[in-house]
Amino acid sequence: MKLITFQTRKLQTRLGALVDGFAIDIERLGAAAGVTLPDNMLDFIDAAPASLDRTRELVSKFAGNWPVGVATPAANVRLLAPIPRPRKNIFGIGLNYVEHVAESARTLDTSSDLPKQPVVFSKPPTSVIGPGDAIEHNAKITQQLDWEVELAVVMGATCRRVSQENAMDAVFGYTVINDVSARDCRRAGQWIFSKGQDTFAPMGPCIVTADEVTDPHNLDLWLKVNGQIKQQSNTRHLLFNIPTLIADISSAITLEPGDIIATGTPSGVGAGRSPQEWLWPGDVVELGVESIGELRNPVVAV
Amino acid sequence: MKLITFQTRKLQTRLGALVDGFAIDIERLGAAAGVTLPDNMLDFIDAAPASLDRTRELVSKFAGNWPVGVATPAANVRLLAPIPRPRKNIFGIGLNYVEHVAESARTLDTSSDLPKQPVVFSKPPTSVIGPGDAIEHNAKITQQLDWEVELAVVMGATCRRVSQENAMDAVFGYTVINDVSARDCRRAGQWIFSKGQDTFAPMGPCIVTADEVTDPHNLDLWLKVNGQIKQQSNTRHLLFNIPTLIADISSAITLEPGDIIATGTPSGVGAGRSPQEWLWPGDVVELGVESIGELRNPVVAV
Repeated sequence: MKLITFQTRKLQTRLGALVDGFAIDIERLGAAAGVTLPDNMLDFIDAAPASLDRTRELVSKFAGNWPVGVATPAANVRLLAPIPRPRKNIFGIGLNYVEHVAESARTLDTSSDLPKQPVVFSKPPTSVIGPGDAIEHNAKITQQLDWEVELAVVMGATCRRVSQENAMDAVFGYTVINDVSARDCRRAGQWIFSKGQDTFAPMGPCIVTADEVTDPHNLDLWLKVNGQIKQQSNTRHLLFNIPTLIADISSAITLEPGDIIATGTPSGVGAGRSPQEWLWPGDVVELGVESIGELRNPVVAV
Repeated sequence: MKLITFQTRKLQTRLGALVDGFAIDIERLGAAAGVTLPDNMLDFIDAAPASLDRTRELVSKFAGNWPVGVATPAANVRLLAPIPRPRKNIFGIGLNYVEHVAESARTLDTSSDLPKQPVVFSKPPTSVIGPGDAIEHNAKITQQLDWEVELAVVMGATCRRVSQENAMDAVFGYTVINDVSARDCRRAGQWIFSKGQDTFAPMGPCIVTADEVTDPHNLDLWLKVNGQIKQQSNTRHLLFNIPTLIADISSAITLEPGDIIATGTPSGVGAGRSPQEWLWPGDVVELGVESIGELRNPVVAV
């Protein structure tokens, strides 16, 4: 199922499912059938798998014959980030594609050796924006604004020292994140100020539940700036795969339902190009991951 | 006012004020006077200054003659971290005391130059524990567990690009944090895995509201391991002072009520000693900041 957070014309924020080109309001669908269902993504994830099972049943029952007020043409709603406000920082993974390790070593301050363990960093919940929202370019702070398309994992269960073998059972679904990075804002090598600024985590357009992603380690991903392809790869090239990341992070940091792990970006970032390229106001960034969806965000001056 | 989050014998988590050796239940105090007051710290901060003004009035009115069920001898309650679950990551500041910059350059991988801008990093909300709670030592992950006493600032208002001149108006109060760090868990220089593990942010014992801290830039701070003094300094030695930190972070990352900035640690950490010293199961860490209070946490094996 493709789950969304959307805004209606009345500016209400609602939880939905994308079905046959319609945004289906999940709570209202439940109410029409006499069933209580959550009205926001985090509560829905907390209540999974029951929430998901029940929603699937109702979608199957009412598809094509939606109760009044439940279905809106998807083109008529505004999509927000599927989790507009995560409960904790997003976990990012640096240097997780071989060729990106090489380009980073050439142009940033990282090692050319492949990392022996996942390179974990964080982006605050305040960095999240949704499809179509503007990535802010503050010229007082950065002249090196960069892009990074990534497959993001959405956790569905609390994980504390989970094994690699059990890790995938804790995955709720997948979404797309642009790990926007101001390369000149690193501080003593720390990345949070360069990657954690407001608007630096465009996310969406939806969460695809894990059951519908046959192999998350074989998905094409790509990114364009102003229509020109900049990144193109496949998640099969991940250095540390998803169960390894979950087991590793949860060995020390408790992961919780709704937590997000951005799994790293392939080569083709602006810093790695020759000559280097950066984002500027007026640019448009489009990116996508196969089977999940696409995001499009303009860059604006602030 | 000294504000606390405490647990009663019935294991309820309550918001309180420390007054004359009693834990005063703020919501119940309000109820006894016909006034609605919050029952948790984050709601209380959101409702400041009205919540604070009204609580002060009621404390003044009822002190020594508390309504039944409102006052419990402080010795009979269990203190939790004043904000047991922050809304986003804690912001930590690295290398913010001159002598700590020197000891870090000798023994860790940091520069001996004083940083030109605050070195921001983060600790997830899941890292928070309270007074008396155990710091976990996982020998599979670290053999270099270290301590760091810090003055922590608790924000009271949303800040986005706030000026240094206006920054102190946004401070709600102050608390104490031990920025526990597993030095051998840095990943490509990133600190979150070394500083963000569960139990690595002992916090408390209370939040002292800003009005009661005459000069946050002139407070003694200290830390002992097993009764032996390891760190002893004063916040007047901060490289970047509190308004600078708030203005800097908020230049790019929105700060919100209840957000926490740990302002950095002075010299005397285990990594900087000769020979180096680390925390082991059975050790007890005590630390404190003048006018705020003290924390005591044992180290246990997991």
